Amino acid sequence: MAFVFPQNILFKHCDPAGIVFFPRYFEMINDCVEVFFDTELGFSFVEIHKYGGVPTAEISAKFSAPSRHGDKLDIRLECIKIGRASLTLEIKAICGEETRFTANSALVFVNSQGRPQSWPNDLRAALEKFKKG
Amino acid sequence: MAFVFPQNILFKHCDPAGIVFFPRYFEMINDCVEVFFDTELGFSFVEIHKYGGVPTAEISAKFSAPSRHGDKLDIRLECIKIGRASLTLEIKAICGEETRFTANSALVFVNSQGRPQSWPNDLRAALEKFKKG
Amino acid sequence: MAFVFPQNILFKHCDPAGIVFFPRYFEMINDCVEVFFDTELGFSFVEIHKYGGVPTAEISAKFSAPSRHGDKLDIRLECIKIGRASLTLEIKAICGEETRFTANSALVFVNSQGRPQSWPNDLRAALEKFKKG
Amino acid sequence: MAFVFPQNILFKHCDPAGIVFFPRYFEMINDCVEVFFDTELGFSFVEIHKYGGVPTAEISAKFSAPSRHGDKLDIRLECIKIGRASLTLEIKAICGEETRFTANSALVFVNSQGRPQSWPNDLRAALEKFKKG
Repeated sequence: MAFVFPQNILFKHCDPAGIVFFPRYFEMINDCVEVFFDTELGFSFVEIHKYGGVPTAEISAKFSAPSRHGDKLDIRLECIKIGRASLTLEIKAICGEETRFTANSALVFVNSQGRPQSWPNDLRAALEKFKKG
Repeated sequence: MAFVFPQNILFKHCDPAGIVFFPRYFEMINDCVEVFFDTELGFSFVEIHKYGGVPTAEISAKFSAPSRHGDKLDIRLECIKIGRASLTLEIKAICGEETRFTANSALVFVNSQGRPQSWPNDLRAALEKFKKG
Repeated sequence: MAFVFPQNILFKHCDPAGIVFFPRYFEMINDCVEVFFDTELGFSFVEIHKYGGVPTAEISAKFSAPSRHGDKLDIRLECIKIGRASLTLEIKAICGEETRFTANSALVFVNSQGRPQSWPNDLRAALEKFKKG
Repeated sequence: MAFVFPQNILFKHCDPAGIVFFPRYFEMINDCVEVFFDTELGFSFVEIHKYGGVPTAEISAKFSAPSRHGDKLDIRLECIKIGRASLTLEIKAICGEETRFTANSALVFVNSQGRPQSWPNDLRAALEKFKKG
């Protein structure tokens, strides 16, 4: 099962070449992860940031085709690997039949001192449902 | 020889956890590449975008330590691979002795139809000077 | 009648003080106007930008109370004045009973040379429905 | 005496119409104020945010001519009114002979509870030097 986050390409996302400026994709990725935690895991970024955080440790993205103003993307998130305190996600943006980008992101669950801490069991169970088959 | 781009961490770069929000690093990377083309290669993004562009095809980054408001980074750029129409860069941010991120970015030089085109010879020669040893 | 644009305050909107960084409000205002044109006026920013644009000529905002990560805003847009080629909007953000900001924005409808041009009659009629009473 | 903050218009600032997207001007304004406090007042935003902040209470801007990628702006800041805990600034962007925008911004100096507090005397004295004649 994938979590799907719809994202319309707005004026603010686009550059003078008329296509999405790639750092804006990373904002969309962060928004997608935030909404995933909030709506699917019942573990909001607001709550998490009271006691720590989920910083991104590593990320890579391949931009396979440009997106233009007005495009309607589906950003699909799946869990690749659920570690003790880490989480590797695949995040893919699709417009119609076309893949626009494929990203892999590794997050770490940290406490307020920035030390990695184990995911709570119920969160881990919720993540398992989104494991890539 | 590396191109060094100084970057102060400003209020706008930081998130509620008090550290740089990672998509802002990608804006800094883009700025660094833009200033590199403009000042070191004599081939400005303004000129390039009249007849095409240099879209980012792929990028990966590892964030090894957080940056905070007020930190003074040196962003170091070196050429890893100079292809016919592509360019792979290593971009590293350092604060004092500490590495904050290491990124690899692959750009493509395209014409106004988005087709890859060969780097001009003088540009290629200029890039060679920044080849990682 | 007001156009209401719901906006959740996300991690990316907030600064190290834990409140919305005010330039992000201007992005929200632009998004609100874009979605208003697209969904209520049937005159999308994508279409408009093929032949010209609707640049913001003037804007003012009063930030009456801070917004925090997780807040759910309603951004309400009403037309204050519909000129020949201009449009003055009031855009107000409300969270529960509290006003977070009140902005006044003046847009101009321009052609591809940047010259002001009259709003089409059907667009003007659509705008009238959102006139502040 | 005005504080002058040079700002090159970069690729990231521009929209599909090829001109600066107006919310980016507000980021530049914030950067200008931050650098002004840091270099001219000797009172850095980093220090201020340890014990409070300087939130923007009100801002207005008139965009008199568009800025394009590659333009070199001088952003000029002057103090209009120095209140007990407030500060009204005029911030104007000039490119060659042409004014690009004129903004008025009102900041408030607050403590960690968000309550207005008096500017320290030495800061007030430093601000007086930048009072608009």
